Amino acid sequence: MPSHNAGLKSHAGLEAETPWWQRADLRYVEGTLHLADTDLNALAARMGTPLYVYSGPRAAANLARLHDALTAAGLDYRVLYAMKANRSPSLLTYLQTTGLCGIDACSLNELHRAICCGFRASQISFTGTSLTRSDYNALAWHPEVAVNADSLHALDAIGRRCPGRAVGLRINPAVGVGYGGNEMLRYSGARTTKFGVYSEQFDAALRIADTHGLRIERIHFHAGSGYLSEGLDQFHSVLEASVPFLARLPALREVNVGGGLGVPHRAADRPLDLRRWASILAAYQSQHGATIVVEPGDYVVKDAGVLLAEVTYAERRRETLFLGIDAGFNLAMEPVFYDLPCEPVPCREPEQASRQIATIVGNINEALDAWALDRPLPAMQAGERLALLNAGGYAAAMASHHCMLGEAAEVLLLD
Amino acid sequence: MPSHNAGLKSHAGLEAETPWWQRADLRYVEGTLHLADTDLNALAARMGTPLYVYSGPRAAANLARLHDALTAAGLDYRVLYAMKANRSPSLLTYLQTTGLCGIDACSLNELHRAICCGFRASQISFTGTSLTRSDYNALAWHPEVAVNADSLHALDAIGRRCPGRAVGLRINPAVGVGYGGNEMLRYSGARTTKFGVYSEQFDAALRIADTHGLRIERIHFHAGSGYLSEGLDQFHSVLEASVPFLARLPALREVNVGGGLGVPHRAADRPLDLRRWASILAAYQSQHGATIVVEPGDYVVKDAGVLLAEVTYAERRRETLFLGIDAGFNLAMEPVFYDLPCEPVPCREPEQASRQIATIVGNINEALDAWALDRPLPAMQAGERLALLNAGGYAAAMASHHCMLGEAAEVLLLD
Repeated sequence: MPSHNAGLKSHAGLEAETPWWQRADLRYVEGTLHLADTDLNALAARMGTPLYVYSGPRAAANLARLHDALTAAGLDYRVLYAMKANRSPSLLTYLQTTGLCGIDACSLNELHRAICCGFRASQISFTGTSLTRSDYNALAWHPEVAVNADSLHALDAIGRRCPGRAVGLRINPAVGVGYGGNEMLRYSGARTTKFGVYSEQFDAALRIADTHGLRIERIHFHAGSGYLSEGLDQFHSVLEASVPFLARLPALREVNVGGGLGVPHRAADRPLDLRRWASILAAYQSQHGATIVVEPGDYVVKDAGVLLAEVTYAERRRETLFLGIDAGFNLAMEPVFYDLPCEPVPCREPEQASRQIATIVGNINEALDAWALDRPLPAMQAGERLALLNAGGYAAAMASHHCMLGEAAEVLLLD
Repeated sequence: MPSHNAGLKSHAGLEAETPWWQRADLRYVEGTLHLADTDLNALAARMGTPLYVYSGPRAAANLARLHDALTAAGLDYRVLYAMKANRSPSLLTYLQTTGLCGIDACSLNELHRAICCGFRASQISFTGTSLTRSDYNALAWHPEVAVNADSLHALDAIGRRCPGRAVGLRINPAVGVGYGGNEMLRYSGARTTKFGVYSEQFDAALRIADTHGLRIERIHFHAGSGYLSEGLDQFHSVLEASVPFLARLPALREVNVGGGLGVPHRAADRPLDLRRWASILAAYQSQHGATIVVEPGDYVVKDAGVLLAEVTYAERRRETLFLGIDAGFNLAMEPVFYDLPCEPVPCREPEQASRQIATIVGNINEALDAWALDRPLPAMQAGERLALLNAGGYAAAMASHHCMLGEAAEVLLLD
């Protein structure tokens, strides 16, 4: 199975070196960019732009790679796909057919969609925050869904409606500073967060569970978000910090370590060392024995998707060559707000001779609406197309209709 | 007409002092928060939360205040509402009935919606960016819409389809550093932006217009975004920088100075000095004589709207008291991403004795999803409701369905 083929140099010569993002199912074939054997330029010509395109097989391959690593480490584990990353109904149904994952849902609407797309309730885990009374009432109608309470209030609300139910408890190991791609993505750390029960609250949690006869058979926590190999030390620390909680839960069956596994966004990013990640989990499991549950979102879908856009104009203003495209930041908010860029790749294979420095901007009337600043790119003209990579996760799922420019179809490629 | 009643102290005693946001149409009446004579607590009880509530009369009053200032300064002017701030169909139709504004549209979908809501084509100005060929084709079907070209490419594209048409040209006066509430909102400044034709391109623009027989009867530019009184010096500088462009346009009839007029978001914010703003415009108009066009968005609708939410839990974690609510940052992105907070105000009038420091968080599974950190607030319990102020502009319009938690009705109050 192809892994990330990371080149050492950013924006280096195209013919001499392999671009960092190239892989067996994402590369130029006879001069045009292909994803999963589909000519993206031809697809955009038929379907129009902006257009999200997802490769089902790539998402399945990403899941299979996780399974391989977890199996090779000898782990007892389950994989739940965090559907908040991409809830396209077709993609969800496809993932269900692969048998490679259950679902991590974070809202009632997500839970309902997972069921609508073919997942059985027993395959679904639910970890929401700041739930309403009607949310709690609805969870009572889904006794087979694995529900994790993220606060004392939630534990009590579940207990009142479902006494005796087996539940999970979201805890906050609160290790030093939590790892995140940036400050905004931290789930734990120096500042107390809204996520999970802290050690100081644990006695109270056990009392609430006891009051309602709840069996806490699962612990849930997040170690971070978007981490690559350099985040693994932090991952290890968070796991260690969870150990004191486990010892006091005689009914413990599962430890859900959340998601947060990242994918490279830039040439300089090193992909996650899955073998080391799995070995950390294996060492941890040897301490407590419970089944490990992982909840990848981005790792499954992000690099399985691209956002196709058409160049609307190329025009020099002062020192800057602007390439306008027909897609704005509202279709993929991570580049602007989370510093997680979508690499722009021409749909037609460029010739090395045509290099220039360009700034790619979108169609939203805001100054921040830029996809890439001062990037070496081939000469491109209006009507040519670009693929913005890593648009499979948290792109369509977080898209807005800002300026009423939020309409973009989603195409699932199945082979 | 009531203006912003700004108090000097943030979070001061409630009974002794008037809260900074209070005004005749937004205040406690018999213990509950009212907007435009509607009890927000009772409305939320009937309609559910999260719920956007807009006051049509407040939006009209904001427009009337602008008219008063512009008229008092002796200006020849037009007001276009920038619908990207809030495109709720009911609100648009209501604004049309007031006769107080035309429309500034920035996309074909917005243009179509304005027409659907009752605006005549002749009341609509269109200033888009990075338009597609089909956008340009569609603009040719609306000869009465005032179209502003924001690039040489756009001017040429319009000229090819509509030779001889009267058009506007978006220019970029590029004065030092552009004013914006923060770096992300700058339309002009040190870095060359995607907006408008720079002085170095002006000769080329005149040649393109000449080629197609286009009459440039309008100049458009933006002086900034979200400015209050402290931005008026910058506003003046940008206007001055536009003068060299005007002298070379014999057909000039209008100068569109864009929007950007801000409203206070915090107790410390001083409201925009409308009289000084209008006097700057009047002095400018005396230099060139053309009609001034202004495009307020936020100024019209932002403080006319609130987002109502229900407290889902109150729980202390370590040093922090968390109040969870059933609305996440996806329903109003400016607090998290643009540092423009939505003041949280309890729907029931608090008693001074019940002060505590709380952190208000939403229902999205992201650490950044917080509305206010460490704020003095009355004691609140699950089931009580909050109004998040200044949710009339760029809230619903930029909302996403992240975590499938983007559903919120919009209520327009008409009296």
